[in-house]
Amino acid sequence: MTINLVEMGKTARAASRQLARASTAQKNAALLAIADCLGSEAERILAVNDAELNDARTRQIGDALLDRMSLKGRLGGIANDVRDVVKLPDPVGEIIEQRTMDTGLRVSRRRTPIGVLGVIYEARPNVTVDVAALSIKTGNAVIMRGGSEIMQSATVLVQVIRDALIASGLPADAVQLIEDTDRAYIGELLKLHEYVDVIIPRGGAALHKFCRENSTIPVITGGVGICHLYVDVSADLDMALKVIDNAKTQRPSPCNALDAILVHESIAPMFIPRVVEHLGTKGVTFRADPAARTLIHDERVTIAGPNDWDTEWMSLVLGIRVVDGVDSAIEHIQAHSLNHSDGILTRDMAQAEHFINEVDSSAVFVNASTRLNDGGQLGLGAEIAVSTQKLHARGPMGLRELTTYKWVIEGDGHIRM
Amino acid sequence: MTINLVEMGKTARAASRQLARASTAQKNAALLAIADCLGSEAERILAVNDAELNDARTRQIGDALLDRMSLKGRLGGIANDVRDVVKLPDPVGEIIEQRTMDTGLRVSRRRTPIGVLGVIYEARPNVTVDVAALSIKTGNAVIMRGGSEIMQSATVLVQVIRDALIASGLPADAVQLIEDTDRAYIGELLKLHEYVDVIIPRGGAALHKFCRENSTIPVITGGVGICHLYVDVSADLDMALKVIDNAKTQRPSPCNALDAILVHESIAPMFIPRVVEHLGTKGVTFRADPAARTLIHDERVTIAGPNDWDTEWMSLVLGIRVVDGVDSAIEHIQAHSLNHSDGILTRDMAQAEHFINEVDSSAVFVNASTRLNDGGQLGLGAEIAVSTQKLHARGPMGLRELTTYKWVIEGDGHIRM
Repeated sequence: MTINLVEMGKTARAASRQLARASTAQKNAALLAIADCLGSEAERILAVNDAELNDARTRQIGDALLDRMSLKGRLGGIANDVRDVVKLPDPVGEIIEQRTMDTGLRVSRRRTPIGVLGVIYEARPNVTVDVAALSIKTGNAVIMRGGSEIMQSATVLVQVIRDALIASGLPADAVQLIEDTDRAYIGELLKLHEYVDVIIPRGGAALHKFCRENSTIPVITGGVGICHLYVDVSADLDMALKVIDNAKTQRPSPCNALDAILVHESIAPMFIPRVVEHLGTKGVTFRADPAARTLIHDERVTIAGPNDWDTEWMSLVLGIRVVDGVDSAIEHIQAHSLNHSDGILTRDMAQAEHFINEVDSSAVFVNASTRLNDGGQLGLGAEIAVSTQKLHARGPMGLRELTTYKWVIEGDGHIRM
Repeated sequence: MTINLVEMGKTARAASRQLARASTAQKNAALLAIADCLGSEAERILAVNDAELNDARTRQIGDALLDRMSLKGRLGGIANDVRDVVKLPDPVGEIIEQRTMDTGLRVSRRRTPIGVLGVIYEARPNVTVDVAALSIKTGNAVIMRGGSEIMQSATVLVQVIRDALIASGLPADAVQLIEDTDRAYIGELLKLHEYVDVIIPRGGAALHKFCRENSTIPVITGGVGICHLYVDVSADLDMALKVIDNAKTQRPSPCNALDAILVHESIAPMFIPRVVEHLGTKGVTFRADPAARTLIHDERVTIAGPNDWDTEWMSLVLGIRVVDGVDSAIEHIQAHSLNHSDGILTRDMAQAEHFINEVDSSAVFVNASTRLNDGGQLGLGAEIAVSTQKLHARGPMGLRELTTYKWVIEGDGHIRM
């Protein structure tokens, strides 16, 4: 099969114009139709997904990946997530700012869809539906490229979505999938700046790096974090232990999971052994700096290697380092954080404020788990990505972050003097 | 001379941390010091600029470029522009949004500097001061690369700025210039994503294209426009003539100057001759489609060639096309606009609203001149660039558009369930 990406871009652009015009009611009706079709077409979808999983098993793919690939028992949840998007307010059309200049010129900014999104994701077929729903709600067309392992599942899901769009009177080409596992198409997509307005990679560090280095379209980079919690001398240590436990073990694989703790030297002798004992029973192993290592002799604690402070663990490993105060903690974070999620555990609000000001991360936490850096947890209702770059949006991106604005300038024959 | 851009990036990053911490008063004091030094060092600056101009004259550089290069008689105005930046509100630290979740978790977003800006500009030495002032005010460090023709002038201006920063207790490395005309350094700057957060090109289409195609850093593209005004059947034709005149002739070279008018067929026979007569006396020549051409026989009116509708004139040339209504006008604009500034002249507010919704430009005008698409005119107080892309900022970018935000999440031991 030969895919013409320019043609896809053109039809996506045309569809985006139609979608930008659609009312909230029309878009919501389409979303409900999609949710319903995920139910009525479940058998067909699961048959394709099952065949793909069987095929993957013959290629000795690991259990974690097989689990991510599977839709079994999940379609109902995915459909409900789409129904939840229906309930969210439509950001399109919102007046951001309005003023009348001294000359009588009326100036406002109106929120509009971005246009065409390019989303590249990995072996999670549920992302197909998730991204399509958020795109439709915000009036954007989307061109997706899913992981090759789930190409068949993504293809059938997009068919279902496109049928529901047509049934709802919206253009099917608002949701398109590059139905080919050839990676060359990713490179082509990244150069399609005439038709695609933003690239959103959903995956690991290598994918983000590839996009940043090869795209002529603005890329939302993120999704990778080396996350720290600093335990201050004044911290409530019971609370600190609870937060560290949650940040490390509640789910260790996402980008907002904890990677290292920095412990004030005054409390380190009593606190570090408690951390090791408590988290150790949950299977956590530890990489300690020499100062921390001397405080605890335990087979689960090894000396940290030179690259360990720059490693996103995504597993039950935790770095432990002793620091002599908040400024040393900040220095370590500035050197090793990827500006995703970093926090302080303290009862001293002046220290907290200092930490907030100095740590340049997309989300800075005080007495709370880094795992809370998530659109749902922070009240956005949904999340398309977590950005760690500085432009457009930082941290969790919800519906509003999938929009842009246009200036509307109304006069009565106003001219420039 | 060999320039180490990585070293520049590192010192810029360090300076940006200091500047992010600076109070509004400190930043304003530095700006006033810069303004004063532009006065006290005027002789030295003008001597360098004069030598550079003399050298340029020997290379037969055109008068328009020589005029742009010259600082003579302009330093006072440049210093006053810096003083105007002092008066603008400091966006850094602003709380964008604040909420308390049902769980008691306190979530806010705080406005912060972006970090390090990379600004590439052409042969306008005044941009050196302009960009430095806006960067300092917003707490950003900046690495600049000016046009090779004005390298000496930019160098002496940056020296004056750095001295003023030091005298004000702020880091000199917040403002750095790549003092070498070798274009290879531009390519290097564009790949410095570890230290530079955004690239802002200030120049023509070729510069923007080069940046988009070679940068691994987010680029704010813009600064290029093919601008249209549609004259509706219901337009007040006296007003329309006044607005078109202003948009075309008040200053024809900037990106927000008018390039083509689209005239409703019902009024074309009486209106197009008026336009040609009125603007013709000011030296405007016209490229007309065949329908418009038949309405006026005048040596200043020639038939538009196939590329003329895709040309940014930047001179006293105006395209004229007859259309059969607002939708044909929109179609023409969608095909030929670069999404900078497009407008409608009408008394019919329903047509105006339709036009506003359908035209996807950074600024859409109703009964006003496209020349008003400018940060100063629209109340931003200053302007670093005009963006025509969709991400981060669209249209004129003021101080706020030189900031990002961080999420601040404060709990009492909050964890993820």
